[in-house]
Amino acid sequence: MVPRYARPEMSALWEPEAKYRIWFEIEAHATEKLGELGVVPQSAAKALWDWWATDPKIDVEAIDAIEAVTKHDVIAFLTWVAEQVGDEARFMHQGMTSSDVLDTTLAVQLARATDLLLADMDDLLAAIERRAREHKYTPTIGRSHGIHAEPVTFGLKLAQAYAEFARNRERLVAARREIATCAISGAVGTFANVSPAVEAHVADKLGLEAEPVSTQVIPRDRHAMYFATLAVVAGSIERVAVEIRHLQRTEVLEAEEYFSPGQKGSSAMPHKRNPILTENLTGQARMIRAYALPALENVALWHERDISHSSVERFIGPDATITLDFALARLTGVIDKLLVYPERMQANMDRMGGLVHSQRVLLALTQNGVSREDAYRLVQRNAMKVWESDGQLSLLDLLKADPEVTAALTESQLEEKFDLEYHFKEVDTIFDRVFGK
Amino acid sequence: MVPRYARPEMSALWEPEAKYRIWFEIEAHATEKLGELGVVPQSAAKALWDWWATDPKIDVEAIDAIEAVTKHDVIAFLTWVAEQVGDEARFMHQGMTSSDVLDTTLAVQLARATDLLLADMDDLLAAIERRAREHKYTPTIGRSHGIHAEPVTFGLKLAQAYAEFARNRERLVAARREIATCAISGAVGTFANVSPAVEAHVADKLGLEAEPVSTQVIPRDRHAMYFATLAVVAGSIERVAVEIRHLQRTEVLEAEEYFSPGQKGSSAMPHKRNPILTENLTGQARMIRAYALPALENVALWHERDISHSSVERFIGPDATITLDFALARLTGVIDKLLVYPERMQANMDRMGGLVHSQRVLLALTQNGVSREDAYRLVQRNAMKVWESDGQLSLLDLLKADPEVTAALTESQLEEKFDLEYHFKEVDTIFDRVFGK
Amino acid sequence: MVPRYARPEMSALWEPEAKYRIWFEIEAHATEKLGELGVVPQSAAKALWDWWATDPKIDVEAIDAIEAVTKHDVIAFLTWVAEQVGDEARFMHQGMTSSDVLDTTLAVQLARATDLLLADMDDLLAAIERRAREHKYTPTIGRSHGIHAEPVTFGLKLAQAYAEFARNRERLVAARREIATCAISGAVGTFANVSPAVEAHVADKLGLEAEPVSTQVIPRDRHAMYFATLAVVAGSIERVAVEIRHLQRTEVLEAEEYFSPGQKGSSAMPHKRNPILTENLTGQARMIRAYALPALENVALWHERDISHSSVERFIGPDATITLDFALARLTGVIDKLLVYPERMQANMDRMGGLVHSQRVLLALTQNGVSREDAYRLVQRNAMKVWESDGQLSLLDLLKADPEVTAALTESQLEEKFDLEYHFKEVDTIFDRVFGK
Amino acid sequence: MVPRYARPEMSALWEPEAKYRIWFEIEAHATEKLGELGVVPQSAAKALWDWWATDPKIDVEAIDAIEAVTKHDVIAFLTWVAEQVGDEARFMHQGMTSSDVLDTTLAVQLARATDLLLADMDDLLAAIERRAREHKYTPTIGRSHGIHAEPVTFGLKLAQAYAEFARNRERLVAARREIATCAISGAVGTFANVSPAVEAHVADKLGLEAEPVSTQVIPRDRHAMYFATLAVVAGSIERVAVEIRHLQRTEVLEAEEYFSPGQKGSSAMPHKRNPILTENLTGQARMIRAYALPALENVALWHERDISHSSVERFIGPDATITLDFALARLTGVIDKLLVYPERMQANMDRMGGLVHSQRVLLALTQNGVSREDAYRLVQRNAMKVWESDGQLSLLDLLKADPEVTAALTESQLEEKFDLEYHFKEVDTIFDRVFGK
Repeated sequence: MVPRYARPEMSALWEPEAKYRIWFEIEAHATEKLGELGVVPQSAAKALWDWWATDPKIDVEAIDAIEAVTKHDVIAFLTWVAEQVGDEARFMHQGMTSSDVLDTTLAVQLARATDLLLADMDDLLAAIERRAREHKYTPTIGRSHGIHAEPVTFGLKLAQAYAEFARNRERLVAARREIATCAISGAVGTFANVSPAVEAHVADKLGLEAEPVSTQVIPRDRHAMYFATLAVVAGSIERVAVEIRHLQRTEVLEAEEYFSPGQKGSSAMPHKRNPILTENLTGQARMIRAYALPALENVALWHERDISHSSVERFIGPDATITLDFALARLTGVIDKLLVYPERMQANMDRMGGLVHSQRVLLALTQNGVSREDAYRLVQRNAMKVWESDGQLSLLDLLKADPEVTAALTESQLEEKFDLEYHFKEVDTIFDRVFGK
Repeated sequence: MVPRYARPEMSALWEPEAKYRIWFEIEAHATEKLGELGVVPQSAAKALWDWWATDPKIDVEAIDAIEAVTKHDVIAFLTWVAEQVGDEARFMHQGMTSSDVLDTTLAVQLARATDLLLADMDDLLAAIERRAREHKYTPTIGRSHGIHAEPVTFGLKLAQAYAEFARNRERLVAARREIATCAISGAVGTFANVSPAVEAHVADKLGLEAEPVSTQVIPRDRHAMYFATLAVVAGSIERVAVEIRHLQRTEVLEAEEYFSPGQKGSSAMPHKRNPILTENLTGQARMIRAYALPALENVALWHERDISHSSVERFIGPDATITLDFALARLTGVIDKLLVYPERMQANMDRMGGLVHSQRVLLALTQNGVSREDAYRLVQRNAMKVWESDGQLSLLDLLKADPEVTAALTESQLEEKFDLEYHFKEVDTIFDRVFGK
Repeated sequence: MVPRYARPEMSALWEPEAKYRIWFEIEAHATEKLGELGVVPQSAAKALWDWWATDPKIDVEAIDAIEAVTKHDVIAFLTWVAEQVGDEARFMHQGMTSSDVLDTTLAVQLARATDLLLADMDDLLAAIERRAREHKYTPTIGRSHGIHAEPVTFGLKLAQAYAEFARNRERLVAARREIATCAISGAVGTFANVSPAVEAHVADKLGLEAEPVSTQVIPRDRHAMYFATLAVVAGSIERVAVEIRHLQRTEVLEAEEYFSPGQKGSSAMPHKRNPILTENLTGQARMIRAYALPALENVALWHERDISHSSVERFIGPDATITLDFALARLTGVIDKLLVYPERMQANMDRMGGLVHSQRVLLALTQNGVSREDAYRLVQRNAMKVWESDGQLSLLDLLKADPEVTAALTESQLEEKFDLEYHFKEVDTIFDRVFGK
Repeated sequence: MVPRYARPEMSALWEPEAKYRIWFEIEAHATEKLGELGVVPQSAAKALWDWWATDPKIDVEAIDAIEAVTKHDVIAFLTWVAEQVGDEARFMHQGMTSSDVLDTTLAVQLARATDLLLADMDDLLAAIERRAREHKYTPTIGRSHGIHAEPVTFGLKLAQAYAEFARNRERLVAARREIATCAISGAVGTFANVSPAVEAHVADKLGLEAEPVSTQVIPRDRHAMYFATLAVVAGSIERVAVEIRHLQRTEVLEAEEYFSPGQKGSSAMPHKRNPILTENLTGQARMIRAYALPALENVALWHERDISHSSVERFIGPDATITLDFALARLTGVIDKLLVYPERMQANMDRMGGLVHSQRVLLALTQNGVSREDAYRLVQRNAMKVWESDGQLSLLDLLKADPEVTAALTESQLEEKFDLEYHFKEVDTIFDRVFGK
């Protein structure tokens, strides 16, 4: 976790105190049910909740000190709670194993983290939609291979991003479902010493599903799927970031990250305005992708469990969610305040001498009886002249002067093929598909 | 693709001929709709389908020869088809771009590949369920950290695997949905020269959904999600493979891969029987995981598309699906014929002198009023003696001889804690959860 | 391996026949030494080499047929050789284990593959150097963050690439040293049944070093380092590929991949000339990077070895080396024939109204007594006007008109700061560093 | 960075204060040389060093506050220093660019981090060597595929680990050389405004090499190689960790991590002693491997640089080096205090009824005229009986009773093949290779 790439609400989720609070809730809910089942005195849960109602401070340092001796975190915590609550606390954790607490806690943390990510995603989608509608009909050149292709609108670019993040939102919802399970099944998952009813009760109280079959742990294919999903979201963030970095290039300059007063682009070159936010996002995306790998390697634990996944999750649990939260929020800000330059978009489109309309001429030629091969040859030979003139020549002019072309298409037919609006006739259809009617 | 790790049906999907067949279908369906819309003569589609009805051989070499000149695969293919079909063929591909064909073809290939994977998965699930039911109550020791923990049944181990692969099946279904989309939207996705109705028609005929907003390509977050999902499945394969490799270790030997007559385990050591199939699966899982990475990097294409994803997909499209298909089938065979040794499982469990029952004694002590701390100390001091005797001493005997223990628990109470059946009382519950009632 | 991304010489290295030839050589050399040591009759090696001298065809299918029964590749091969050579062949492989043959063979293959890669690298370095010297003083704008920074020369860009690939060449040499070891140490590496003298002899004959301590296998940290090194080389390939893709963008167009007559850039848009070779290289780089991952996971084999690395190496051995060989050769071709447009470079540089000289003015102001803070403010306020004018305004003109600036710098001092040549005074120094005097 | 996996000396290297100290040194050394060259007054460097000689506290918060306004870290730092030192400070950074400072600082940090890692490595090598010599002739079974193969010694296992880490040490030295370069070359690496002599001076003072050709940045192939090397080291750590985890398995129990008094293996099962340190190392190795990936993706920066690498390095710079430092130290502790059980090693070896000697019998049969095929068959048929008896039968006894065997080998010849010492005759040779004579 890099502090400058962390936001407080998400970070707080991963603080020791937040973890211990969840531990307590799990233990107390479990003790409550154990009391109902007659396994432990009902007074035990009451003692726990009574203490909890006093809103006690969790003394992280004291717990750490106990762990330094026992070398076991859950035992350290239980010992500390027992010191606070007194004798009744000895009934806590009855028949449970540490992983019952640890894994269910991780589920709660990841579920809550995902809720924050989903809220981030909603903000991002709202920002994209707003800008997409604003630029629904702002013409800009579509580029394939970095080369001018045919006209699109800036709104369409954003609609594409919207659709992609809407898919990512669905994936996050599915990923949340993957990891939001509760296991209270004892040392090797047989419920030998703890009834499935306890698991059901704790799951219900914490808003989780009961894990159908746990071993000692919740199976790690769930977490692998979760972090792989974050990696896909990161890929989409990188895609938008790279788009903006391209648009801000000096030669393109169709859009720019907002540049605040007082900001300095370069210590050496006072003229610079750099797309540093989206470059940053690009790097953060690389990290979030990387975190999926150890999660995938974590799946193959030995037998009913080994603990190799644990050190991995101490890193990637916070690092992946905190960084993604930051990245989504940063991207939202970038989109929200993005400086968009429609005149420059038009100017860039125009500088190719009308080459972007070559396909329509090609189609018109074939429709008027020219073979595909010939039509391609005719258009290409004129297009290449324009290309080599660096846009100084006009494709329309050259075509009008090419007798083989004019044998098939009249001047006005040719001119009609250079109409920009023609390209936008389905923009509305696409917007309806993406944003709904 | 490694031929020895490939099965014919899946491999065939990725052969050039299969690809060209799909190309033709897309082009012919599109021409059909274009005919209906009056954009091209209706005779064009008829000519195409008539030729197709003759079941023509696809001459891959001839197409390659044309591509060597044009350096463009789709144009080479169209040219070749035109040579076969004649003049009417020039109406093919009207208003479309190569990616309309290529991306939709990849969608068809991946969807069909996934159908094969789903069938593999069903076979695997059936094999696991059969063996799980067979060994529902076969006692075996549960292990955490590789150390004996408490008893489970071999059927429970398999039930866990079943649940994991049932989740993987669902993930595959979702992944199929991700990539089964059709884009016929023209050079930059605006439908400028091809109506959305064509896309809808082709999608319908090929069993795909129309892509809501394509650029020139279907967005690659879909494929990233797809290959990431395969990576998760690979993780689960590795998990089961590692489990079996562990069980076949000389010192454990609770299960073994089937060893056929005539097979030689080692050229040098005639006594060897090695778990080579599951070791192989372990390596294959590493490959399938690795293929997810470039798919994730493919998401951030430049602007409306660059073609950097294409070389990646030429590798991972076939390699990931063919290898996973092989791995699933191999795992099914391993599970199906797995040699299981219940006596050895019992023998291994017994060799720890009853240590696996330590928790129940601990719980009983606390329930009879001993503090958790004291109970832990009492059990541990006896357990450590058994541990250090390498299972020669019996935990039950030692406990019976420990006055601090017998002060809290009678001899018959102690004996009752060493009952194996106690651990299996919820096996049925778990089986119901996993396999349904 | 994707056939279109494979070159024959490298591919041949990985054909079954090439593998079997190396197997034979290892076995025959070993038998020779065993004969000298009196372990087997000296006639045995003679019989093997006599047969080999007849230049026998390796019957891959026959060997495969035997393997189908024995399920063991080395035994199948030995059996087939024995069928050819006769009775004396039974002394082959005495005291050896399959891995002695397999691992040493992999070492030979990887060493030979690396020799090809080094030759590729030499070709690439030669091409880069030639173009670097050609464009040693061709001015072009240096860009950071995609934004115009200050002038460089196109030769400097290439010198940077040269230095990077020269480092990569050294890394490849080191990586070759890592994997060029021979192990003939028997079933668990103790030389129990085969003298270290045999290993020394085979190593010597095959140009390898003896592995200081093998288990059954050559340790896989060596291979991990090897494939990680290929991944780094791939990163450098991507870097140059991305540079060229940027330079070929419509708006930049300072360089272009060679576009051959007859080539079609787009089936739909006859005007397109796309940087498809470098886009391809970008994707191939992703693959080569991905192959490093399973190699890294292969290190942690169980005990004296498990065979999980083997299936991985069947993929990545050929796939990584073949693809890198292809990519290096392709990149060499791209560099060699790259179309370079110096006028466009100059035009792009000029369009920023002289902003690229802002730093020199800043320095001059501070040297003439203006505080750094003030100097920055003075330059930035004029630079921003130029920036916002899209290069229509001239920085020099604005500075001349700014009294706070002219209070510190005379007109001629200002003009001197806009001299392009100033930036190239150390080009020669850098070329000397990179290419030697 | 996870605090519990961090050691203070390495962590301190990555603290803001340590970074700012290096920044200052670079700026002051550069100013010194600029003074010598007459570019700035010589009094400037003097003022800086005079202030530095007062051992000033670096006020991180004050610098952060300035950065919050300027949004540029180096400018913020320079501003703060100027506030402390006064007017002379305005000559700092003359002709330099931020990256000159940042990249050279990263080089210093990584070089110093590597020095710590090399010291860790020396400790680890010493621990391994000590234990290897201690157990040079402790017999233990060698295992391939997890199956008993032939005898080795525990010292040989450790010698293998030693050789692997000695290689890793060399790799780290090479990796240090890769990243220990200094770049003071100005905005785009042309030395336009700063003489190469400044770079040479700073490099010399900081113990770095001058970067032959930088752009704005030190090329990132260097860092990719660095982090890839750490990933390889991590693989070796995992290998040893997995070995120990295997040896500690209940059924094997040939070695154990030290278990301190007061330690609790499991909250639920008082009998457990788990290999948690090596499991932890396994997970940490996964992380260190993962960090190599974004470093590899960082190579392909745009043109003379983009800043996407920066956010990545803020994570992996500290995280990879801190975690590896911790892991090496932890592994050293584990090796140092490892509990080794030679009796159990012998017992495990004996339980296979002598199967581990099968190869020697096979060789003896072929040497006495039995065909390889027949010899294999004879040994295998007896070996399989022993295998199926679970080691109750003795291979030697069965062979003595097999007339086909005794036709070729006398009873005493057979007995001689079951001599354990035979396997260790080259241990000394191997130790000499690994540790030197």
